[in-house]
Parts: sequence; C-alpha cells; structure tokens
Amino acid sequence: MCSHLAATVGLAATPDEIVITSGSQQALDLIAKVLLDPGDLVVTENPAYLGALQAFQAYEARAVGLSSDEHGLQPAALLAFLESSPVRPKLLYLIPNYQNPTGVSLAAPRRAEIVAIAARFALPVLEDDPYGALRFSGAALPALGAFPGARDCLYLGTSSKILAPGLRVAWLVVKDRALREKITTAKQAADLHTSSFTQRIVHHYVQQPGVLDAHVATLCEVYRNRRDVMLAALTRELPAGCTWTQPTGGLFLWVTLPAGHDTTDLLHIAAREKIAFVPGAPFWVGEPVRNTLRLNFSNATDARINEGLARLGTILRRG
Amino acid sequence: MCSHLAATVGLAATPDEIVITSGSQQALDLIAKVLLDPGDLVVTENPAYLGALQAFQAYEARAVGLSSDEHGLQPAALLAFLESSPVRPKLLYLIPNYQNPTGVSLAAPRRAEIVAIAARFALPVLEDDPYGALRFSGAALPALGAFPGARDCLYLGTSSKILAPGLRVAWLVVKDRALREKITTAKQAADLHTSSFTQRIVHHYVQQPGVLDAHVATLCEVYRNRRDVMLAALTRELPAGCTWTQPTGGLFLWVTLPAGHDTTDLLHIAAREKIAFVPGAPFWVGEPVRNTLRLNFSNATDARINEGLARLGTILRRG
Repeated sequence: MCSHLAATVGLAATPDEIVITSGSQQALDLIAKVLLDPGDLVVTENPAYLGALQAFQAYEARAVGLSSDEHGLQPAALLAFLESSPVRPKLLYLIPNYQNPTGVSLAAPRRAEIVAIAARFALPVLEDDPYGALRFSGAALPALGAFPGARDCLYLGTSSKILAPGLRVAWLVVKDRALREKITTAKQAADLHTSSFTQRIVHHYVQQPGVLDAHVATLCEVYRNRRDVMLAALTRELPAGCTWTQPTGGLFLWVTLPAGHDTTDLLHIAAREKIAFVPGAPFWVGEPVRNTLRLNFSNATDARINEGLARLGTILRRG
Repeated sequence: MCSHLAATVGLAATPDEIVITSGSQQALDLIAKVLLDPGDLVVTENPAYLGALQAFQAYEARAVGLSSDEHGLQPAALLAFLESSPVRPKLLYLIPNYQNPTGVSLAAPRRAEIVAIAARFALPVLEDDPYGALRFSGAALPALGAFPGARDCLYLGTSSKILAPGLRVAWLVVKDRALREKITTAKQAADLHTSSFTQRIVHHYVQQPGVLDAHVATLCEVYRNRRDVMLAALTRELPAGCTWTQPTGGLFLWVTLPAGHDTTDLLHIAAREKIAFVPGAPFWVGEPVRNTLRLNFSNATDARINEGLARLGTILRRG
C-alpha cells in the first residue's frame, strides 16, 4: 500500500524499506532520537514546521533556518552554509510540497540542486510530505529521493491529510538498512507498534481501486475553491502593504503584514472579534519575523472565510 | 472512564490528572524522556519487564535490579540500596500485580513498606499495572499511590490486556502538575496525540454498564483454567529440579530449570520440536540467570498447553 503511494512520487520502495509510524510526528521524533545528539545541527527552511522544530528541540538539537522564498529553500543559502559551517549538520529537513507554514513549494530546479549539494556533503535529507497529494494545479514534482544522484534521502508520507488524522498512520521510506534497523528499534521502545486496527482501516480503504484517488480529487476541488475564495478575500479586505503566498496546493497560506505589526498581540484583538489565525513567530528559527501569520483555507466555508477576512481587514485598518 | 478505572485500584484521579498514551510502552518512553538523563539510575525488580528496560536504555539510563522473590521486590534490598548508593536513583519501576516476566505479585505488607521507603528518599515510583484486572483469586490490592504516605507515585493502566492491544490506548495517572505538563509536552512532540478513533472505541466500550466487567470475568475464567492446566502439566511433565512460580492472575509464569541449563540454547532445540517459550536471560538486569524462562498460559488451548509441556519435558529429560 505504502509502496504504491511511494511510487506516485517517483520512489521505488519495497515494503521492507518502509517503517509505519504513529503519525508523521512520531517519525520526526524517531529520526531525531536516532540521528541527533545534544548540540547537533539540523538545517531547514525558515520559517519551518513547528512540530518538527519541537521534535528536534526535544533532543537538544539546534535548528538552522536558511533563506527561503516563494520557491522554497534557496540552494545558494544551503551551499554557503555547508561550506562555511565549522560543524557539519546531521540532517536537512524540508517540506518540499505546500510547506507548513508558508504553502510554498520547492521548485523543480532547486530540488535537483539541493539533492546534489546534500549528496556532495553527505548530508541526510528528510522530506516530509503530508500535503503533496493535495495538488490544485501543475504537474506533481518527484520526491527528492527520486532525483538522480540522491543519497540518504528519507521520505515521510501520511494518511492524515488525505484520509483522517485521528487514525495516526504514517509511513517512512528508509532505504539504508542500518538506519532503518535503528529506527525500528527506537520505534519498538517508543510504543511497540502503531495500532494494528487503524493500519487495517487505512489498508482496507486504500486497496479499493480508485477510492482514494476519488476522495483526494474531491478534497482538491473543495480546497482549491476555498483557496481561491481566500485569495480573493485577502485582495479585497486587507489594507495596502500586506502580502501573501499563492499556494498551488495544501492547506495553508502565509501572510506578511506591514512592518511594525506583531501578530501574537494581534491574535488577542482578533479573538475578541471571534476570528483566529496562527501567529507566525513560533515558526521562525532564530529571530522571529513578528508581522507574519499562517492562515488555513481548507477548513472553513466560503462564507466564513469571507467574513473572517473582512473582520481581519477591519482590525488592521483600525489599528 | 480512566478515572473510574483508577478508582478500582483505590486511586482518586480526576480526568485532568490523566495522560492518554499510545499503549503503556509510550508512557514508559515519555517518562524516561522526561525524568532520565544519561547515566541516571532506575531501580527495579530482578528480573524485570524487558520493554521497560529497553525504554530506559534508549535514554542511556542504567537499571539496577534488586532482589525479588515469590512476594515481589524485597523492601530490605531497596532500603539497603538507597542507604548505600552514592548516586540517588531517579525512578523506582515496578509491576506489582502478576509481574512480567515472573507472574509474581508484590505482597500487601511489602507495598506499604516500599511506599514508605520511596517517600523517605523522595524516590518517584512508577507502578505499571497492565495485568491487575486479570485476578483469579484473592482480594485486589490497592495501587502503591493509594497507600498512606505515598508521594510521587505514577500509575500506568492500559486497555491492551483487557480489551485489545491493537488499539494502543493506555493511561497514565500523574498527580504532580509540573511533571504532568512536561510529560504532555513530550507526548505532543512524540506523536501529537493518540488515535482519537481508537480512544473513542475504548470509551464507547467501557461506558456501557457491566460490559467490561463481564468481559474481564470471562477472561479471568478462561485464563485461570489455562493457568491450572499449565501448572498441572508442569508438575506432570518437567523433570525433578525444575521450579516455577504460582501466579494468582495475569498471563505469565516463570520457570527455573536445574543449574547448567541455558534456555537461549534450549529454544533452538525446542523450535525443532515446534514449541516455543521466552528465554529468561534478557529480563535480567546485570548478570542473567540463564536457566530461567517465561511461559504464557493465556494464549493456548488446554490441549496445546499439555502437548507443549510434554514436548518440553521430553527435551529436558533427553538432554
């Protein structure tokens, strides 16, 4: 089942090469447990996925956030860091598709460059891909591990965003046998095994021909429309000086307010107007950019998206 | 639901004081992650539960196995260790009811003594109680945390042995708020949350009046009979010089063969006769007692128990 899903992103993985985990978060935790010692460096995008940062911090590793833009992590920033850092990082962590929190995707030429740089520096890469199937337009891009010359690329998929997060069934492709055995041992010490019952549910669902594809197509249609509604509402409602990303899939987009705003403070005001967003500060590695925030477009109706952004616009124009 | 189950072992726990984990093993992992640093000491019975030892080892803690007999851990051994150890241990780990691997229960007077000693030395106690409900005779003994003067006693229950291990729903009672918050943070970094779907299944099952009690009564009846069959077969089939524990509940009993046997080697011979047991060596902290083995009596029919032990007896008499 997971072998089939891996094939959809260009990865040939035998069932033997896959470790089932209790959600993607557990895979992040296990990889951190196996690969990272206190003080070790993990290189990532900036901003980066908060849950991954927390998993790495739990093992007292240090994250290094590199320059990222509307096409994802900048290969030049990675190269410059690796050439200049006195300490060799232990892991490169990326969400190449519809990143959390920004919604940005790593452009294809950059994927090839990053894979080549990582291979040159023998830097293991963890591709976290919870949103890749939620593609609204354009062609699917291959997983990093599918590029020529890739080495030590781990790939992490999950049923959470295409089926149900409450089932906690994710899957990690680990080609390297020695590393896979270490991760399996850590998995057993962590929770013995992932619920066999929820694994069976996922298996039963996914093995029915066309059912998952049809469900994902429905999700994409609904989420694409909501993204469009949100982008239009942002244009209509937010004052001048605000900018935002233009995701081509996934769940999130990322808003930058004019300089001087602090979205952590703003959330308290917004809560009084009964609207919510995720303040951007915790996603930043190092110094936070406080005028940023994450919006989710997949989970609310068109009417609520429009009303919510109208209220946010009013707050921003007022203050 | 878990509050109700806690009350059955004499613990008054509010829902707030309970952390749901993905099986007991995850609770062991989280406690180790939060409480233990490399080199820290964990005191336990000897032999002790292998999965707990592995969880502690994963954080580079050192286990200290103290003298245990047919009534469980010897309080005098605990006191002597605490009075003489230059390093204060971080945790006392016990399975007081029908211990894994021995099937032995910690006698009531010893519970009171151990609770008093642990309190005097400010030693946190983790009571792991997967089998307590599988009681074949005698009165239920209270949890360690229910004894007068108890302090810093954690209690770990699970649905695995009374409902289904594949659901991975366990529950940890942590009275201390600061510790509970640390464990909750570690839990979130480890897997975000335990499957909400399997939690709902357990909740739905347990909230129906009498259904769990009736199921546990059935389990106890079946397992009690199988224990009796196994005890009779051991008496009938094993050669002189073999001894075994007499569990009053649970799943396991513990056999000691005459000196000179090595059950790890014996397993290879047994496998050729198509029988299996768990060699005792990995359960020992420190120097293993190699002529020990664990038998499970809950999982096989009477006929298979009898046939299996007849074969084991033949092998032992032959060799």
